[in-house]
Order: sequence, then C-alpha cells, then structure tokens
Amino acid sequence: MKIPRSISKLIDSFQGLPGIGPKSAQRLTFHLLRIPQDQIERFANALTGLKQGTIICGVCKNVGEEEICAVCSDNLRDHAKIIVVANPMDAFAIEKTGYNGIYHVLHGLIDPLNGIGPEELFIDDLIQRIGNYLKENDDLLEVILATNTSMEGESTAMYISNLIKKNNFKLTLSRIARGLPVGGDIEYADEVTLSRALEGRVEF
Amino acid sequence: MKIPRSISKLIDSFQGLPGIGPKSAQRLTFHLLRIPQDQIERFANALTGLKQGTIICGVCKNVGEEEICAVCSDNLRDHAKIIVVANPMDAFAIEKTGYNGIYHVLHGLIDPLNGIGPEELFIDDLIQRIGNYLKENDDLLEVILATNTSMEGESTAMYISNLIKKNNFKLTLSRIARGLPVGGDIEYADEVTLSRALEGRVEF
Repeated sequence: MKIPRSISKLIDSFQGLPGIGPKSAQRLTFHLLRIPQDQIERFANALTGLKQGTIICGVCKNVGEEEICAVCSDNLRDHAKIIVVANPMDAFAIEKTGYNGIYHVLHGLIDPLNGIGPEELFIDDLIQRIGNYLKENDDLLEVILATNTSMEGESTAMYISNLIKKNNFKLTLSRIARGLPVGGDIEYADEVTLSRALEGRVEF
Repeated sequence: MKIPRSISKLIDSFQGLPGIGPKSAQRLTFHLLRIPQDQIERFANALTGLKQGTIICGVCKNVGEEEICAVCSDNLRDHAKIIVVANPMDAFAIEKTGYNGIYHVLHGLIDPLNGIGPEELFIDDLIQRIGNYLKENDDLLEVILATNTSMEGESTAMYISNLIKKNNFKLTLSRIARGLPVGGDIEYADEVTLSRALEGRVEF
C-alpha cells in the first residue's frame, strides 16, 4: 500500500514546521481529509495571504500592516523607551503587560551553532536607530534588552550592550530581571535562577 | 498593538487542528512568516490538492488514488482475510507489519459522547461486503477486528461482532491480542492490561 501522493505531500509540508514530527504530521493530514473542502480552502488562503497582508515596520522591524507600524506611529507612546526583543511574539507578550514604550525586533538571536550571526539580525538597524534618536532628541533614552534568558538570549544581549558601549551612546541600558517566576517555589528553583534572584534583590 | 489580520487568520486556522493550542498556533504562524513565499505556496497547494488527489476506495473505504484502491485490486493479496480498522493511518501502520490480506476502514469509532453513531461509520458497508463475499466464495473468510483497545474501540468491535452474529455469517471472527507491548515491564503494566495478557496466554 502506498500513501497517495497528495497525502504524503501535505505530510511533508507539516513535518517542515517546528515541533511537528512525522506522527503529528500524519495525524493532522488525516484530520484535514475529514473536514469540509471550504474550511481547507480558508486555511490555504490564510497561508498564501500571510505575507501579502504583513510588512516589516521600517522603524522597529516588527510585523505590521503599514510601512510604519501602529506602535511606532503612535505619538501617545513613550518613544524614549525601547524594548529590544527577539521576535514579534515577544513584543505581543510584552504588550499585554501594559507597556507604553516602543520596540525593536531583532528577528532572531545570535546562534553560531545554527549559523546565525549578528549580521543576520536587525542589530545594526538598532544601533543606527539609537544614533539617530540621540542626534535629534535631548531626552534620556532607555533601552531595555528583553531577549530570552537562554544562552543565545544572554549572548545577544551582551553583544548589543558591547556595541552600545563602543559607540559611546549616552543612554540607560537595562536587562529584564532574572529571578523566580511569580508563584515560584524556592525549593524547586534551579541554582542559577536562585542566585540571579538573590543578586537582583530589591529593597522591600 | 494589534496582531495583523492576516496573521490572526492563520493562527485561527492552525488552532482548529487537533493538538494545536493557541501558543503552538502562534509559533507556527510566526515561523511561516520567516520562510520563503514559494515554500508557503507549496504548503497551500498541498492543502487545497489534498482531497482532489484522493478518493475513498469503493471496496475497503481506505483513501487511495483510484476508484478501487491498489490493495483491493491486488490479486496477489489474500482476499479472504479482512482487517477492520478505524482510520487509514491504522491501515498504514498494519501494512508495515507485512500483512498480506485486505482492509476495511470504518473512518471512526462509535463514540456517543461525541455524537458518532454506527450509521456515521462504514459499518453497514462492511456487513454488506461480507454478505456479498460469502455469496460468491466458498473459502473460509477471516475478519480481524483491529480497532483501538480504548473504550470506543472495544465497543465498536463488540457492535460489529454482534451484527455479524445476528446475520448468521459463517466466518472466523477475531480481535487483535491485548497484552503487554513488546519490551514491556510486568512491574509497570496496569492491571487491566496484565489480566488481558494472562487471559490471552499462548502455548509456549
């Protein structure tokens, strides 16, 4: 018995996605075989239209629907506060906290093992953007490095912080706090997190 | 910040798939944002072409590429042995064991809680198929019920076995063995599996 070509083609496409193995790809494909064709068409149209409906913002590099995204063109937001994140999803997550500044999206993290160097990311754009801001404004700029607390996230933050120092930019540079997650258990925290939580202790 | 409509549309489509929650749907969508458009087009084409390239076999109801699938039209296979499975994926799995008979695919299991009754499945077709076979052939037909060993699988097997008895069909009816999986640990086996394994013991 041969799996029909139209089925194996879709299984292959699913398998190319992150976190979807051969078994899940099969399950998803056979699920789609059972749902109405118009629902499948809607899915396919959403796929092909994905990039046509989005554009990388010229300022913050986040995905948006206009040349300059809704956040960057919003004058009510604090443009003297830039949070640097790896991905659009991170920006959406931070947005939910009620953050009122603006963003800079790197579109990845430095990861030499996977062949991703700083030049693949929007790091140069960040440096240029900071330079332009400082030339035109007198307010104190704050840059918050909010990359993941993984090895790649930490080294990307380190790399950006070195670049900023090298350029002698006058600004406040910070890194998001590392510590126990809210609701966390000291007993079960790993030692690195716990020592970061102690280092970063704040006055009560 | 609003998620662009073309992104949220694709997130919604992914979320409709089994086993994909809001977080995974987001991750998949943002992953696709980063891959080349032609790869996305290939994915979309595989989706829309899924059903056009497949057809339900008129005999065994498995998905295939012709009116009568490759298995059912293969005269080298043993047509006096029919394995009844719930889904095409199950048939593909059994095929890998080197099985040389043919199949009958129910396309689901009886599951009253989710509103799936026997009339939603290809059970009547199975009974009719067995009836026709017995009218035309004198060989001993063997029907093997290979539905899952879950509650739905067991009750579907029970339902079919009752129908076969009611029709007074002369055939060998069997159920796949329930017991310890190969490489299994008696110590960790649940008691239902273990008692099934004991009941189904075979001569050494």
